[in-house]
Amino acid sequence: MAQKPSIPKGTRDFSPVEVSKRNYIISIMRRHFEQFGYQPIETPSFENSETLMGKYGEEGDRLIFKILNSGDYLDKVPVEELQNINYKKLTGKISEKALRYDLTVPFARYVVQHQNEIEFPFKRYQIQPVWRADRPQKGRFREFYQCDADVVGSTSLWQEVELVQLYDSVFTALGLAGVTIKINNRKILSGIAEVIGASDKLIDFTVALDKLDKIGEEGVKKEMLEKGISEDALVKVQPLFSFSGSIADKLEKLSQLLATSEEGKKGIEELRFICENVTRLGLQKAQLDLDVTLARGLNYYTGAIFEVSAPEGVAMGSIGGGGRYDDLTGIFGLKNMSGVGISFGLDRIYLVLEELNLFPPTVTTSTQVLFLNFGESQAFEAMKAVTNLRAKGVKAEVYPDAAKIDKQFKHAERRMIPFVVKEIKGDLFTLKDLQTGEQSETDVAGILAKLA
Amino acid sequence: MAQKPSIPKGTRDFSPVEVSKRNYIISIMRRHFEQFGYQPIETPSFENSETLMGKYGEEGDRLIFKILNSGDYLDKVPVEELQNINYKKLTGKISEKALRYDLTVPFARYVVQHQNEIEFPFKRYQIQPVWRADRPQKGRFREFYQCDADVVGSTSLWQEVELVQLYDSVFTALGLAGVTIKINNRKILSGIAEVIGASDKLIDFTVALDKLDKIGEEGVKKEMLEKGISEDALVKVQPLFSFSGSIADKLEKLSQLLATSEEGKKGIEELRFICENVTRLGLQKAQLDLDVTLARGLNYYTGAIFEVSAPEGVAMGSIGGGGRYDDLTGIFGLKNMSGVGISFGLDRIYLVLEELNLFPPTVTTSTQVLFLNFGESQAFEAMKAVTNLRAKGVKAEVYPDAAKIDKQFKHAERRMIPFVVKEIKGDLFTLKDLQTGEQSETDVAGILAKLA
Repeated sequence: MAQKPSIPKGTRDFSPVEVSKRNYIISIMRRHFEQFGYQPIETPSFENSETLMGKYGEEGDRLIFKILNSGDYLDKVPVEELQNINYKKLTGKISEKALRYDLTVPFARYVVQHQNEIEFPFKRYQIQPVWRADRPQKGRFREFYQCDADVVGSTSLWQEVELVQLYDSVFTALGLAGVTIKINNRKILSGIAEVIGASDKLIDFTVALDKLDKIGEEGVKKEMLEKGISEDALVKVQPLFSFSGSIADKLEKLSQLLATSEEGKKGIEELRFICENVTRLGLQKAQLDLDVTLARGLNYYTGAIFEVSAPEGVAMGSIGGGGRYDDLTGIFGLKNMSGVGISFGLDRIYLVLEELNLFPPTVTTSTQVLFLNFGESQAFEAMKAVTNLRAKGVKAEVYPDAAKIDKQFKHAERRMIPFVVKEIKGDLFTLKDLQTGEQSETDVAGILAKLA
Repeated sequence: MAQKPSIPKGTRDFSPVEVSKRNYIISIMRRHFEQFGYQPIETPSFENSETLMGKYGEEGDRLIFKILNSGDYLDKVPVEELQNINYKKLTGKISEKALRYDLTVPFARYVVQHQNEIEFPFKRYQIQPVWRADRPQKGRFREFYQCDADVVGSTSLWQEVELVQLYDSVFTALGLAGVTIKINNRKILSGIAEVIGASDKLIDFTVALDKLDKIGEEGVKKEMLEKGISEDALVKVQPLFSFSGSIADKLEKLSQLLATSEEGKKGIEELRFICENVTRLGLQKAQLDLDVTLARGLNYYTGAIFEVSAPEGVAMGSIGGGGRYDDLTGIFGLKNMSGVGISFGLDRIYLVLEELNLFPPTVTTSTQVLFLNFGESQAFEAMKAVTNLRAKGVKAEVYPDAAKIDKQFKHAERRMIPFVVKEIKGDLFTLKDLQTGEQSETDVAGILAKLA
């Protein structure tokens, strides 16, 4: 093989430093998920195709990776049929499994399949990769992790309150100050569409409104007009384009705008409960804001809608999002199971922490001390010391070969190992600090003290 | 959908308790891998098919899960061709990617692809799922985790010594006493085949010998005869069937048997170095043994061969294995890269710990204290207390709805939450211990003390 091997487009290898940083973020999420009572589950990487297909719209179906049946998958496809088949039909005959596209549908499937073993309300978190045959581009991959916390089986709004706190706790623990947790409610959007007489164009209306921060007021209005929303309606909707002030101010304005919509009023009531309680309980480093333009995947959210944006000054899309679905498991035949959940965008959080230099330096510390190798008898003494140090929790190594000392030092430097043991005399080691160049004779206790 | 949804055969859902137990094992492996200087990498779940195909033999090729190309994958397959195509040929035209089959080939690919960024010798560990289209059976799954530690770029036998220590450290930390780390060497097997005049039948010979503990002496001899190994050869090989005593004894017997084989003597020398140094450095709870029948995937091992068996009395196959390949990366064009590594069998280790009741009870402790919900104003007080407790590291929850108290108590019991707060009066909580039934009035500090 003359050519260097490569990996499929849209996928990534993760180096030791990258894995360590990713695991740092994941371990903080795990800890906080569990403090909030969420329990981990894991589901298979591939599901039966019928579990996934038709759950994400036509576009989604197209982006799901399908797995070829094993063995002679053409065995049951008559030759006559093959001549006149299109690829979509053929797929159904030669593929029965598909890679997970998100964690929500597998979670719904899990809940229905295991409903008799589950104690509801069921708070679960799940941190696993998903796969999408999207066109790869900067920051968009064909394999990426989702990190989801959801609770199913209760309509209590305390869960929305708690999920806002959970976002705040995780981002605070990551040292990330100034994220904004934006909240909205599907019922507010429906209410607005209702009062402006565009209920039949709810999706078009919200899709356009959702773009306000991207294409501006004029852009949104243009798109709404194109979609057949009337000039009259645009006048009524005008207040939304300059919707500022405190959350209380915004709720007050919404109350006026939605006075005639029962659904809109219900949405305001829900938002008020969540925002008031979050405020009374207090957030640490995040801030809450009401964003009436926020829609996200409106199709499935029925109540609260969340989105988290990175601190101001960091050019990054949303780093998290979520909301409530009143009928999470209905697609699998289990009715009346309301669910609400949030997701953390691992890749983007990683980039934000990198940009703001927020990874603690210890995260990437691998080996702490390298014992040089001067040949077999000294190597044995070094192995003895290293065995002892490891038992005490130290990350220690012996260079495996009696290579030139220069080469061994270079190895330590390139791997950013801070200390090298150059010589062993009985219980004493000559320890060199590679940063300061300082050298000292010390024993195991001394090494432990240096590393502490 | 009338039918309950299901998952593909050979795959598994993992419940919270199962995930917690698996993560407990994985976290211990991680810690020790890192103490030994191994660094984590991760590779994509799917690779280009050409990276995987042809690397695992014909059987392996068959068991690799292939992914259908996205979009109209038939676009480039002329209809004429479709009429006379067999599935193997078609696969090459409609599938370019395949799911990872093990972690070794992706590791070799990684090393070659990133050779200019890697500092050698490179010690890496990797804990990720792999997929095989094997017929599912008890203990054999189509998706399962592999946990590998390998070092590439040095032929030093200290690495074999260290890998034995690594097995010992991990199993000791898991509380698993009495595992046996069996060691052999490909050169010993070649040497035996040479001295009995069966060098041309090395594979048949070792495959048969490897079955000694399964089919017994007579079975092995029968198979060897069937494969064309002579009666004469069987006489010479007789000592291997009752190969007992200390490692030193066995090495002595091997020295006699292999006196005329240069390769055999080299194997003995390697084994002696490894065993002597392991013994001098001392193991904690595992024991080392020389097993001349051990062959495993002989085709690729060129030096040491390892296999770990569960403690006596536990009916379980091997719980780990590994060995040295002198030419790990040659398949991708990078020559002279010797590699040696070991693998831990997560699923089987899980079953052994379960059988011996070795999971610490704390592993599955989820929420520690549940605050009952008596309606909104009390719920707010409860949320305040819970927010406070979580900030102090406690796993605490409020029941989300003001449901009947009986139901809330049952919820705590079913989820095995040990403490319930029944009432809040200012800063005082009525805390009930669900195991003892004991009830007390206490403050936050008191709760923290109880849970400590």
